[in-house]
Amino acid sequence: MIPQDALSELASMLGERLSTGKSDLDLHGRSETYHAPMPPEAVVYPDTTEEVSRIVAICARHGVPVVGWGTGTALEGHGSAPRGGVTIDFRRMDKVLEVVPEDMLVRVQPGVTRESLNTELRATGLFFPVDPGANASLGGMAATRASGTTAVRYGTMADQVRALEVVLADGRIIHTGTRARKSSAGYDLTRLFVGSEGTLGLMTELTLRLWGQPEAVSAAVCGFDTTDGAIDAVITAMQMGLTPARIEYVDVATVRILNAADGAALPERPHLLLEFHGTEEAVAAEAARFGDIAAEHGGGAYAWATQAEDRSRLWSMRHRAYHTILATRPGATAVVTDVCVPISKLGEAIMRAAADIHASGLDGPILGHVGDGNYHAILLVDRDDPDEIAEAKRLSDAMVAHALDLGGTATGEHGVGFGKLHLMEAEHGAAWDVMGALKRALDPDGLMNPGKLVRQN
Amino acid sequence: MIPQDALSELASMLGERLSTGKSDLDLHGRSETYHAPMPPEAVVYPDTTEEVSRIVAICARHGVPVVGWGTGTALEGHGSAPRGGVTIDFRRMDKVLEVVPEDMLVRVQPGVTRESLNTELRATGLFFPVDPGANASLGGMAATRASGTTAVRYGTMADQVRALEVVLADGRIIHTGTRARKSSAGYDLTRLFVGSEGTLGLMTELTLRLWGQPEAVSAAVCGFDTTDGAIDAVITAMQMGLTPARIEYVDVATVRILNAADGAALPERPHLLLEFHGTEEAVAAEAARFGDIAAEHGGGAYAWATQAEDRSRLWSMRHRAYHTILATRPGATAVVTDVCVPISKLGEAIMRAAADIHASGLDGPILGHVGDGNYHAILLVDRDDPDEIAEAKRLSDAMVAHALDLGGTATGEHGVGFGKLHLMEAEHGAAWDVMGALKRALDPDGLMNPGKLVRQN
Repeated sequence: MIPQDALSELASMLGERLSTGKSDLDLHGRSETYHAPMPPEAVVYPDTTEEVSRIVAICARHGVPVVGWGTGTALEGHGSAPRGGVTIDFRRMDKVLEVVPEDMLVRVQPGVTRESLNTELRATGLFFPVDPGANASLGGMAATRASGTTAVRYGTMADQVRALEVVLADGRIIHTGTRARKSSAGYDLTRLFVGSEGTLGLMTELTLRLWGQPEAVSAAVCGFDTTDGAIDAVITAMQMGLTPARIEYVDVATVRILNAADGAALPERPHLLLEFHGTEEAVAAEAARFGDIAAEHGGGAYAWATQAEDRSRLWSMRHRAYHTILATRPGATAVVTDVCVPISKLGEAIMRAAADIHASGLDGPILGHVGDGNYHAILLVDRDDPDEIAEAKRLSDAMVAHALDLGGTATGEHGVGFGKLHLMEAEHGAAWDVMGALKRALDPDGLMNPGKLVRQN
Repeated sequence: MIPQDALSELASMLGERLSTGKSDLDLHGRSETYHAPMPPEAVVYPDTTEEVSRIVAICARHGVPVVGWGTGTALEGHGSAPRGGVTIDFRRMDKVLEVVPEDMLVRVQPGVTRESLNTELRATGLFFPVDPGANASLGGMAATRASGTTAVRYGTMADQVRALEVVLADGRIIHTGTRARKSSAGYDLTRLFVGSEGTLGLMTELTLRLWGQPEAVSAAVCGFDTTDGAIDAVITAMQMGLTPARIEYVDVATVRILNAADGAALPERPHLLLEFHGTEEAVAAEAARFGDIAAEHGGGAYAWATQAEDRSRLWSMRHRAYHTILATRPGATAVVTDVCVPISKLGEAIMRAAADIHASGLDGPILGHVGDGNYHAILLVDRDDPDEIAEAKRLSDAMVAHALDLGGTATGEHGVGFGKLHLMEAEHGAAWDVMGALKRALDPDGLMNPGKLVRQN
């Protein structure tokens, strides 16, 4: 329970920007996936870094947990409040503070979403490439080290964040990183906070790298005779040094759903969805090379989309796929897997996952960012059927165990939250204790997003 | 003083691989630059991770400092032993343990040098791109977050290290990272250890990313009417999205020295040395675009080197430049600056540095990795003249202060060691205290490379 004193202090600072209404609390306890709701006891809507600092300091003084909130699109319960406390919703801190085209950088508040940033950048010739599908906040994306379809060419959030302003567990405000392209000046704190899921501090400003809008863009869909063939084509393309901006796999089950629900009109085969960025010549050359590779692996004719609106329809369909798949079973929720394996092991991992899902009897279409070795099974379950949820979690854990055997990771881009907490010891061994030691060093009272990412008493 | 018990334990484990001979100690106390020698009290030469773990555990039990040593080419006193203790020389741990061409990875011991790795990789079609000039050890390069001429295209050591085995301050062995291309599974410990200069633990194995040998390589030298013109050409090229593999600036003083000492036969003008990697078409296209940019900024005709041996002569001359410059003043040593600024500020930073050096009367040729905004002044000083050393340090500190004003960093690639320790508070502010808290969390007794990187009592 938040002490009344703490609530009063917060209320006197924030007025109506402190909320304890049930609907607001419920909204901030919800998860996009199967996790049970865990609402906070209060939600605050700060406007400035200074306010975040004061909120966190008040919470620290009173022993109140603090959870950061962007758009609520995290998949592993990152934003929920299992120990109650205060959720800091960053929606009002949504300003693009400074665009620095000459250094290809932008400074933003954490509540800016990736789409609103790109809208603002449109006239500059620059863009922000990371695209996890959801229109997530940039603070949330950095906190979970998000990536998505374009990471295969542009890297993940970790590769874009040049500098941070962070409010620490005691309310101190620090600045990490610089605007230079590289630095050897001590521990890479920027990288430590990126992916720390709000457990070490809260980002209140981010300086992000921008990229030049590509001169030419070309997208394609390509069906394959077999899953093996599609995956082998990806492996070959990556090993040959092709640099697609996107190279996405969708299995037959996903294709059927997209055809039925979204009018995709694709042949009922496993498909790759691709996009190439670059000069006209480079795009043409890469597309031709990929065409040869695809043909050698049972790929059919390419269907090309060089018009912006055709591409936009394609990727919008891909981004909606999670919700389209969910909608095939009314009232269902999902356990979403997220393993990432070395590229050479991708076929082995996906084939085993597909066989396990088939044997379980659950529906679990597979799709993913296969150029990175990262894919998801959307395991559909009845939220009120504990046996189905248990079976889906068993499948997910088996995929993780296999991925770890293959030299991969339990989560390529969704993060740990509390949904993958039980897998961290298997993945990291004694290194997980080191993460715990770092957590205790920066948050000795364990108030920053408690119950997530690290082992905590 | 190392307690006799500790020495006996080490001797019984290591036999002749424990050395306390004066010449060996002196060798491990030396610096490549102006820093006074600070030898350890003993040097050990382990063969295995297990031995490193036992050595560190013995030292921990007896309160003995531990310093890691690669090839001794660090520039800021990283390998010196200001508090005595044991230096662990990794020269015997020099095995390439596993090449994984299908995932473009290699697993190495820390004592493997970058040149020996590339020799071993030659037949695979892959190579390791990071090139700091010196034939440094890969462990040392990771520990200082080294980069060099090729970082502008391939990134720094931070971008290449996929996974680590680390011996912690208490002797525990941990593994960080995976073989997957990305992961969101908790704090990025790999990135925390890269650049930590042996102050948090010692790397005993590194899994590194490899790259395909480029189909075509082309190098060029290009003289400019003015420094401004050369730097503006770099800024324009980077802002237009060119991706040179190398784009190096050498000032007129450096050109004169290379002409006199190395037979460079270059016109006495500021020069850019360039290299492009890619397909034949991409290399030709980038080179042509750069030619246009250079011409607009007072650049002369390109001299092209497409033959491997011509290129090799060019880069070998560039890599020798530090020692060639040193040799122009017999008996001199150097204070080597290493600021890195946002690319748009590069001209401003270099012009001010050149003016300050000129005003000081010291010799200080300027050269650097300008595509990254990183450059060095080689300030030549008499090792026995405290006034000259003080003046060079004053110049270096002024360059850092200016770089910080411009949004840059005190060190782009050399690291902190103890030579840049006094600048860390100005660069990081309260974030430096956070580094100190992390240090205390992982090395509570302050025995790992003490006196470097963080504030320590």
